[in-house]
Amino acid sequence: MCTAVSFVSKDHYFGRNLDLDRSYGECVVITPRQFVFEMRHLEALKTHYALIGMAVVADETPLYYEATNEKGLSMAGLNFPGNAVYKAYDASKDNVAPFEFIPWILGQCEDVQQAKRLLVKMNLVNTNFSDQLPLTPLHWIISDSKTSLTVESVKDGLKIYDNPWGVLTNNPTFDYHLINMHQYMGLKEANEVNTLNPEIELNNISLGFGALGLPGDYSSISRFVRAAYVKSKSFFGNSEKENVSQFFHILNAVAMPKGCVQCPNGEFEYTRYSCCCNTKTGIYTYTTYHNSTKNSVDLHSVNLNASELICYELIE
Amino acid sequence: MCTAVSFVSKDHYFGRNLDLDRSYGECVVITPRQFVFEMRHLEALKTHYALIGMAVVADETPLYYEATNEKGLSMAGLNFPGNAVYKAYDASKDNVAPFEFIPWILGQCEDVQQAKRLLVKMNLVNTNFSDQLPLTPLHWIISDSKTSLTVESVKDGLKIYDNPWGVLTNNPTFDYHLINMHQYMGLKEANEVNTLNPEIELNNISLGFGALGLPGDYSSISRFVRAAYVKSKSFFGNSEKENVSQFFHILNAVAMPKGCVQCPNGEFEYTRYSCCCNTKTGIYTYTTYHNSTKNSVDLHSVNLNASELICYELIE
Amino acid sequence: MCTAVSFVSKDHYFGRNLDLDRSYGECVVITPRQFVFEMRHLEALKTHYALIGMAVVADETPLYYEATNEKGLSMAGLNFPGNAVYKAYDASKDNVAPFEFIPWILGQCEDVQQAKRLLVKMNLVNTNFSDQLPLTPLHWIISDSKTSLTVESVKDGLKIYDNPWGVLTNNPTFDYHLINMHQYMGLKEANEVNTLNPEIELNNISLGFGALGLPGDYSSISRFVRAAYVKSKSFFGNSEKENVSQFFHILNAVAMPKGCVQCPNGEFEYTRYSCCCNTKTGIYTYTTYHNSTKNSVDLHSVNLNASELICYELIE
Amino acid sequence: MCTAVSFVSKDHYFGRNLDLDRSYGECVVITPRQFVFEMRHLEALKTHYALIGMAVVADETPLYYEATNEKGLSMAGLNFPGNAVYKAYDASKDNVAPFEFIPWILGQCEDVQQAKRLLVKMNLVNTNFSDQLPLTPLHWIISDSKTSLTVESVKDGLKIYDNPWGVLTNNPTFDYHLINMHQYMGLKEANEVNTLNPEIELNNISLGFGALGLPGDYSSISRFVRAAYVKSKSFFGNSEKENVSQFFHILNAVAMPKGCVQCPNGEFEYTRYSCCCNTKTGIYTYTTYHNSTKNSVDLHSVNLNASELICYELIE
Repeated sequence: MCTAVSFVSKDHYFGRNLDLDRSYGECVVITPRQFVFEMRHLEALKTHYALIGMAVVADETPLYYEATNEKGLSMAGLNFPGNAVYKAYDASKDNVAPFEFIPWILGQCEDVQQAKRLLVKMNLVNTNFSDQLPLTPLHWIISDSKTSLTVESVKDGLKIYDNPWGVLTNNPTFDYHLINMHQYMGLKEANEVNTLNPEIELNNISLGFGALGLPGDYSSISRFVRAAYVKSKSFFGNSEKENVSQFFHILNAVAMPKGCVQCPNGEFEYTRYSCCCNTKTGIYTYTTYHNSTKNSVDLHSVNLNASELICYELIE
Repeated sequence: MCTAVSFVSKDHYFGRNLDLDRSYGECVVITPRQFVFEMRHLEALKTHYALIGMAVVADETPLYYEATNEKGLSMAGLNFPGNAVYKAYDASKDNVAPFEFIPWILGQCEDVQQAKRLLVKMNLVNTNFSDQLPLTPLHWIISDSKTSLTVESVKDGLKIYDNPWGVLTNNPTFDYHLINMHQYMGLKEANEVNTLNPEIELNNISLGFGALGLPGDYSSISRFVRAAYVKSKSFFGNSEKENVSQFFHILNAVAMPKGCVQCPNGEFEYTRYSCCCNTKTGIYTYTTYHNSTKNSVDLHSVNLNASELICYELIE
Repeated sequence: MCTAVSFVSKDHYFGRNLDLDRSYGECVVITPRQFVFEMRHLEALKTHYALIGMAVVADETPLYYEATNEKGLSMAGLNFPGNAVYKAYDASKDNVAPFEFIPWILGQCEDVQQAKRLLVKMNLVNTNFSDQLPLTPLHWIISDSKTSLTVESVKDGLKIYDNPWGVLTNNPTFDYHLINMHQYMGLKEANEVNTLNPEIELNNISLGFGALGLPGDYSSISRFVRAAYVKSKSFFGNSEKENVSQFFHILNAVAMPKGCVQCPNGEFEYTRYSCCCNTKTGIYTYTTYHNSTKNSVDLHSVNLNASELICYELIE
Repeated sequence: MCTAVSFVSKDHYFGRNLDLDRSYGECVVITPRQFVFEMRHLEALKTHYALIGMAVVADETPLYYEATNEKGLSMAGLNFPGNAVYKAYDASKDNVAPFEFIPWILGQCEDVQQAKRLLVKMNLVNTNFSDQLPLTPLHWIISDSKTSLTVESVKDGLKIYDNPWGVLTNNPTFDYHLINMHQYMGLKEANEVNTLNPEIELNNISLGFGALGLPGDYSSISRFVRAAYVKSKSFFGNSEKENVSQFFHILNAVAMPKGCVQCPNGEFEYTRYSCCCNTKTGIYTYTTYHNSTKNSVDLHSVNLNASELICYELIE
C-alpha cells in the first residue's frame, strides 16, 4: 500500500510513500541515457531519456518503484491487488511487461501527451521478470508539470484516467476514488459556521472544525481522501526548501506508523521511505522510516551519457 | 493547538507538537539547579532539579512550553482557550502563576506522586508575567515513567485527572476526551471481519480496514483520538534510535501541515516543532517544520550545578 | 435506551421513543386530580394537576415512563446506566424516590420555572418501589413550551442542565452531549459548496450532502445528534395533523428497528412505542412497533376531578 | 431520491420509499391481464401478467414507479440524474422507452432469469412519453424471491448488475455502491470489544457501539449503507403482520423527514409514500407521509382478466 503525489508549486514535485511489510533492497538509481533497456517483446531501448528514482536492481535491470526522467515526466507504480489483470500477448499492440512499463514511458516521452500516444497502443502483458520475481499487481500514476494520468490494466482492459487530484493510493479502481471525493467537497481549512441551529450557540471549540469528516485511518480509500485534502490546502512558499518540506508534510499526513497496520501474515506494513523529486532540477530527496533527515541525489551530478546504472544506497 | 504524548517503551519518552500560527522565539533551554526561579507569591526556588525543554526566555526567565527534569518528570502546557480560568489570590493555598507552574512542579518533584502533593494545595492564580505577556489559557499534562495526570483550572476549580492515554491535546475539558475515547474501542490494526452480512462476500479490499472510523482532521478532539490510536498500536523496537523515531511518527500522525488549518485572523496554524525527550537520559530531540533532521541536546552535557540558563537556538 | 423530544411549533409537543428488549405491560394512564400520590418520605399529594402518559401500574400506583400535566409541563425518564447515583436520605431536603419524581414535579408545577424551585431542594433518594421493582438508573427531561431541563443525579450530586436542544437520549452525562453537538454545527439541509478544491469540479451527486457526517447508528450519542439535527431542520405545518405527523417522523429517525441492536443477554432492543403529546390540548398520541396507526387518548375526555386511575391498553 | 428494498423472510417482500419535493398524483393501480400496453417501438402487449403498484395514470397509461406482477416479480425505478443515458433507436434490439420498461418486464417475465433474457436484447431508447412528460433519468431494481438485479443505462451502454444487497437508492452508479459496502463489513448489532487498548478500561457506555460508523445523513450513498445494514440485521417474525411491519421499519430508517433535505429550488424533498408488497399474496401495503396507518390493496381482490385499470386513491 502506498501513496503517490504530484504537486505544482514554484516547480513541479513528484513523490510517494512506499508502504510495505518488508524491504527488497531498494536504492536510488540513476539510469543514464545509454543504458540498454532490454524489452521482452519489443526492441530494446538503446538510447533514451535518463531516469532517477527508487529501484531494486535485479540482474542488472532497474525495477523502478517510481522515477522521473530528465524532461520532468514522472511515474510511480502502486499496489493494486485483486484488480490488476495483465493480458496475454497481443500481436496487434506494443506488448510491455509491467516491470518494463516505467522505463518504456519515461525513456521515450517528454510529457503526459506523449505518454498517452504510447498508452493507446500498449498491452500490459502478463510476463514476469523471473521465477523469483513474479508479476506484481500494480496501477500507475504518470505526471508532468501540467497534468496526471492513472493507468489501470483491469479485467475489462487498459483504463486511462485523467487524474485531477494528482494523487494515487491503492484499491479500489480509480473511478471509485474519483466519485468518492465528491463527498468531501465541503471540507475546508477555515472554521465552521453554525448552519445546524442558529438559535443555539455553537462554537468552533477548536480550530480545524472545517475539516471534520476527514478520515484518519490507513486504508487506501482514506489515504486518498487525506492526501487530496492536505495537498489541496497546502501552503507552498517561495523557496525550494519550503516546497520540498511541504511536500514531505503531505506525505507524512498519510504515512503509516509501524504497528498501526497489520498484514494477515502478522507483519506490520509501514512507510519504508518517502521521496520527492523536483522534476525540473532532477534533485531526488528521500527520507526513510528511521532517518527523517532529507537526503538528496542530483540526476545532473553524473554523466547522463553513460551506459552504467549508478546506485546510491539508502542512508538509514 | 498542540498534542503532547508520554510513552513508555524501553525508556520513557515525553514530547509534543507545538502548533501555532506564529513563533515567539523559542529555543531549547537548560535550567541548571542553581538558577533562581523567582515566584510572584511564594519564596523563590533557589535550588531545584535541573530542567530541559523548549522555552521562550523573557526577562531572563525561561517560560517553558514543556520540560523534563533530571529525575524524568515531564510536563507540558497546551492551549485551552475558553476553558482555562485562573483564580484570584487565595491565602490558604500555594499561589502559583501559570507561567511558574512547570518550574514549580518540575523543580521540586521526582514523580507524579510528589507532584500530586503539591497540586492539592496549589491555586493557579491569575497573575500574568507582564503587560506584554498576558495570561495564556492552558492546561497541562504531567508524566513520569509510570503514569500521567492532566491538570485543568476551570470555572469549577482545579481539576486533576488520571490520564491513562498519556495524551493531551486541547479543548474541550479532559473529561470529554476520556468519555469520547470509548467510542473508538473497536479500532484495531488488523483486518476487519465480515459481521455485516456473512451471506454476502465482503473483503478487506485494502489493509487498514480495522481502523476505519479513525478521524483525520486537525481539531483537538480528532487529534486526541488519532494520537491515542497510533500510540496504542505503536511498535517500539529495542534501540534508542527506533524508539525516538517511532515517537516522532506518532507526533507526525497528528502534526498540522501548513495550509490545512486557518485561524480566524487568516493565518495558518501549523506544527512549528516536534520534540521527544528520553526522560532517563535527558536527551531532548526536536525537529522543526522545515528541518526534519533530528537535532538533540543532552541535559547532562552541561554543568547542572550552574546558575545560568543555557539556550540552544533552533536549527531550522 | 430511549429518545425524548420537546418541540414547539404551532403548539408544544412532547414525546419519546421507548427502546427496550422487553415489555413491562405499560399502558396509557390518566391520573386525575384527586388520585392520592403516596410519597415514601414526604406527605402524600392528595390533590394535584392531572397527568397523562405511559405508565406501568404497580400496586395501584402509576409508574410513569413519561407524562404531561394539564398545564402542559412534561417530563420523561430515560435510561442512564452506570451514571445515575441515587443518594441516601437527607433530612435537609425533600427526599423523592426516583419512581415518585415525575408525579412530584408534574403534580405540583405549571412550568419549568416552578419545577426548578422544587429541584433545588430535592434529594433523589435511593428508595426502590419494591423488592420486585428495584431502582432503575434514569435521568430526566422536563419541558414546557418555552424551555427544557435535564436532571441527572450523579456521583457528584444533582445536576440541573438547561437543555437548549429539547432532546434527551442516554449515556454519557448530559454535559458530554452538549459539547459533542458543537462538532455538528456545520450540518445543513442544503447542498454542499465546493470548498475543498475549486479547481476541480466537485458536485452534489446526491441531495443531502450538506448533512454528511450525521451519524446513523443507534448508540445514545449518535441518536442525540440525529434527533437534534432532524428536530432542528424539521418543517412544521399549520395543521395539528401535520405537526403530530412531523413529530413522529423525528422519532422515526432515531427509532430502533428490531435486530439492529443486541443486548449482551442476546435479546434485541427496539422501539416498543413512540408517543407525542400536544401539551396544550392534552391529546396523547402513540404508535407501537407493530402498529403504525396513530392512536390518541384525550386527557380532557375524562373527569379530571376523579380519584381513580384510568388506563387504556395499547392497541397493538 | 428514493430507496427500494427486496427482502425474503417468510415470504418475499418488495417495496420502496418515494422521496420527492412534489406529488404527481400517484395512486395504487392494478393493471389486469387484458389491459393493452401500447409500445412505441414494439408490438403492444395485449395480454400479460397482471400488475399492482404505485403509478401516475397519464392518457390512460399507468406510469409505474414500482410494481409487482402476479408471479411475484417486482421492479422499481429510482432517480438516477446525471448518469442515466437513454440511447438512440437501435434496429437490432428491442427498443423500450423508459416509461414502458416496468410493464415490458413485469408483463412478460415470471422471474429474474426470464427478465435477464429480455434485458440482453433490449435498448432503453430515448423516447419520452409526451411533451409534458419528458424523459426521467432512472435506474431500476428487478427482484424475485431469490435474487435481484440492478439495471442502468449509462453512457457506456446498458449495465446489468447482480444486486446481492437487494437495495437500491440513487447516484452514483451501482458499481460504486457495491465497492463502498466493503468499508462497512465490520458493522454489527452486538456490543463492541476493546481492541484499541486492552490496558485501558473501555466500555460500551451505550448499546449499539457495534454499528458506530453507520452514516445517518440522507444522501443516496448513506441511505444505501443504512438500508443494507438495517435489512441485513432485521429480525423477522413468523406472522405476516410482523414481517410487513419490519419491512416498514427498514424503510423508516432511510425515510426523509420534511425539512432535512432541501433541493436547489428551495423545496424540501421528503418521503411521500412508503410501500411493501408481499409478492406471493399480491397484497400491496402503503403509508403516506402524514398517514402512518398501513393501507392495503389486494391484487387478487379484482378480476384480473379485465382490461381496465383499477385505481385506488391514496388515503392521506
